[in-house]
Amino acid sequence: MADLREYIEGMARAAKKASAGLRGLSAERKNAALLAVAEAIDASRPRLRDANSRDLDRGGKAGLSNALLDRLTLTDRRIDDIIQSLKDIAGFEDPVGESIGVRRPAGFVLEKVRTPIGVIVMIYESRPNVTVDAAGLCLKAGNAVILRGGSEAAESSKALVELIRQGLARTGVDEDAVQYVERPEYEAIDILVTQAGIVDLVIPRGGESLIRRVVETATVPVIKHYKGVCHIYVDPSADLSKAAAVVVNSKVQRPGTCNALEKLLVHEAVAARFLPLVRGKMPNVELRGDERARAILSGIKPAAEEDWYAEYLDLVLAVKVVAGLDEAIQHIEKYGSRHTDGICATDARSIERFVSLVDSAVVTVNASTRLNDGGIFGLGAEIGISTDKLHARGPMGLKELTTYKWVLRGNGDIRT
Amino acid sequence: MADLREYIEGMARAAKKASAGLRGLSAERKNAALLAVAEAIDASRPRLRDANSRDLDRGGKAGLSNALLDRLTLTDRRIDDIIQSLKDIAGFEDPVGESIGVRRPAGFVLEKVRTPIGVIVMIYESRPNVTVDAAGLCLKAGNAVILRGGSEAAESSKALVELIRQGLARTGVDEDAVQYVERPEYEAIDILVTQAGIVDLVIPRGGESLIRRVVETATVPVIKHYKGVCHIYVDPSADLSKAAAVVVNSKVQRPGTCNALEKLLVHEAVAARFLPLVRGKMPNVELRGDERARAILSGIKPAAEEDWYAEYLDLVLAVKVVAGLDEAIQHIEKYGSRHTDGICATDARSIERFVSLVDSAVVTVNASTRLNDGGIFGLGAEIGISTDKLHARGPMGLKELTTYKWVLRGNGDIRT
Repeated sequence: MADLREYIEGMARAAKKASAGLRGLSAERKNAALLAVAEAIDASRPRLRDANSRDLDRGGKAGLSNALLDRLTLTDRRIDDIIQSLKDIAGFEDPVGESIGVRRPAGFVLEKVRTPIGVIVMIYESRPNVTVDAAGLCLKAGNAVILRGGSEAAESSKALVELIRQGLARTGVDEDAVQYVERPEYEAIDILVTQAGIVDLVIPRGGESLIRRVVETATVPVIKHYKGVCHIYVDPSADLSKAAAVVVNSKVQRPGTCNALEKLLVHEAVAARFLPLVRGKMPNVELRGDERARAILSGIKPAAEEDWYAEYLDLVLAVKVVAGLDEAIQHIEKYGSRHTDGICATDARSIERFVSLVDSAVVTVNASTRLNDGGIFGLGAEIGISTDKLHARGPMGLKELTTYKWVLRGNGDIRT
Repeated sequence: MADLREYIEGMARAAKKASAGLRGLSAERKNAALLAVAEAIDASRPRLRDANSRDLDRGGKAGLSNALLDRLTLTDRRIDDIIQSLKDIAGFEDPVGESIGVRRPAGFVLEKVRTPIGVIVMIYESRPNVTVDAAGLCLKAGNAVILRGGSEAAESSKALVELIRQGLARTGVDEDAVQYVERPEYEAIDILVTQAGIVDLVIPRGGESLIRRVVETATVPVIKHYKGVCHIYVDPSADLSKAAAVVVNSKVQRPGTCNALEKLLVHEAVAARFLPLVRGKMPNVELRGDERARAILSGIKPAAEEDWYAEYLDLVLAVKVVAGLDEAIQHIEKYGSRHTDGICATDARSIERFVSLVDSAVVTVNASTRLNDGGIFGLGAEIGISTDKLHARGPMGLKELTTYKWVLRGNGDIRT
């Protein structure tokens, strides 16, 4: 443990030093570094594929599922995407230095200016492209980042970070702006998240138990990327055919993501028409219903209490018949994870009541929950979807990786 | 402990329930409640003075300093101020529901809407007016608040909270929107700050050890209101007469506050002229200098290493002669608390370098550090001055007591 602590604290100090240097870096310098990283990756495809195949070999022997192995694989197409993503980030407007507002409250000029956050720790799961996206976004926002990726992708991530640091060094940027935790021990995370005064923010993405441990240990601020127990409520005023298309897309378009639909709440006045319609459009989805839903959809499994809390991430959907809008709102308040929840309705009063009372990061109206995405929202790339309420809520893009400071310019002004 | 836990968890649950009700409350209803609270306080002055005199008696017997007893005292003038503050808050524009931006990224309409945070825990020191300001600001922003004030003002705060709840009840607002922790045990705070999923935010104001304990224990987000080790650097390009007025005001106008000046850094080229000038203007301030400052100001005490970290909150100032702007910036980076730091200069390059590289909540240019104040900044009232970088930095007013959600309005839109 002592040498692990020394290793991690050394990384934290190096990140803090790099962060001071990044603070004053022009957009041109940062963009040149991002493009140099893209070039370094492009020039080292065989090396990357090698490292990746070591991860895949190990994963195959360890019995990882084909789905997970597929997510781990760095195909040439995926390397192209990683390179394109870096070029995109280089093309985004630099958020640092942006004036967020000027006022003259009392003689002096007061300006709110966007600044980097400082040192960010990012803890994430296995996809190698997250390594590059996180590094690129943090760099563009002027932050130093310490990355801790999933062990399944360790070789690929290490190889990518080496190339990132090569690109930084080539353009005269402190390479400690991007560091990767190579030690596998979980305690590395415990040490990282207690570096108060050095680390400014921890962003954990991944399993519930990981996030819970980070929250319980951390003394530095955390923005959680937690699970999505997403609901859609279908009002009697809904256009049922559009609602069915929205529900089906929310559920099946990519069921393994945090913005996929997990619970369907249907008003009793339309349940007998709507539920069979939906079942017919997605016969491959396992439905689990409350008593009233089961009375309509014969043969489906009963939903147990724990079903209402569950994030299936699979082709499973729990279905409940509700007596009204307010029962739906209360159900979401009790069981939801405040990620993405929606209503299908045409009645304006129902819509506005739902929108104002449902306290979720993203509230959808007659639209798929799958549309909750930084890219689709026009925020550029996203580092994740925050389920926290402070600082950043929902998709977290470049601006959400910055903070601000107040600059007060006077001419000898004093307080009287 | 078991009954304390039950007591605190009961408060947390009641706050969460109240918070769901506050979410949909109109500005009119909230303002009516604020004015009813003001009336209840106005009608109960004798009762308040009674409660307050019990605090003062106990404090006198416990040997509190006169300065502290003075801060505790509820004079009629101070009760007037409390009432006026509530009326001011009722007059502020309601931040909840404000549209922070609308875009149409892909067919649907995407709006970012300001919403309440939810349940806030506020831990603060002894001034009774903070009880009312915190309750009023949280209420206006649609949040339920659990207050834990200093024990010295316990009777006064309890009496005030009773009147606040009376005002809420009279206007049909759930009185659990404002609750006061009457139990004196510190463990009450430990329990409060670990109510993840119920409490959304903890704001600790007060001593360093209190804040440290909160940060180490909390599993819910914390916005710290930490100490202010504030610096001013005097550049050779400064107008020395204006700089002296700024330094003196920063130090002596109210030395007990977190935005008072604690450290003076003077460029070597002007130290021999500037230091005697400043000393002459504030002969009652004890100066502590580094070697070079002491060579200029004979007879002053030496500054020890711990002086550079210290928040004196008193008529004491540490003084250092620096070789240049960058030495000043590095000194602030190493010893400062990122609260309020300033430069006195006329040279634009020096000013811009200082402003871009000094990473403090408020950076002042030719202006007193004492001007860092929500009221002066035009934010309305402030709940405190955040020294954190996330969500709110510097003065924390009504808007900083809100978050946002995304509302996505479509017409059957799906992801393809």
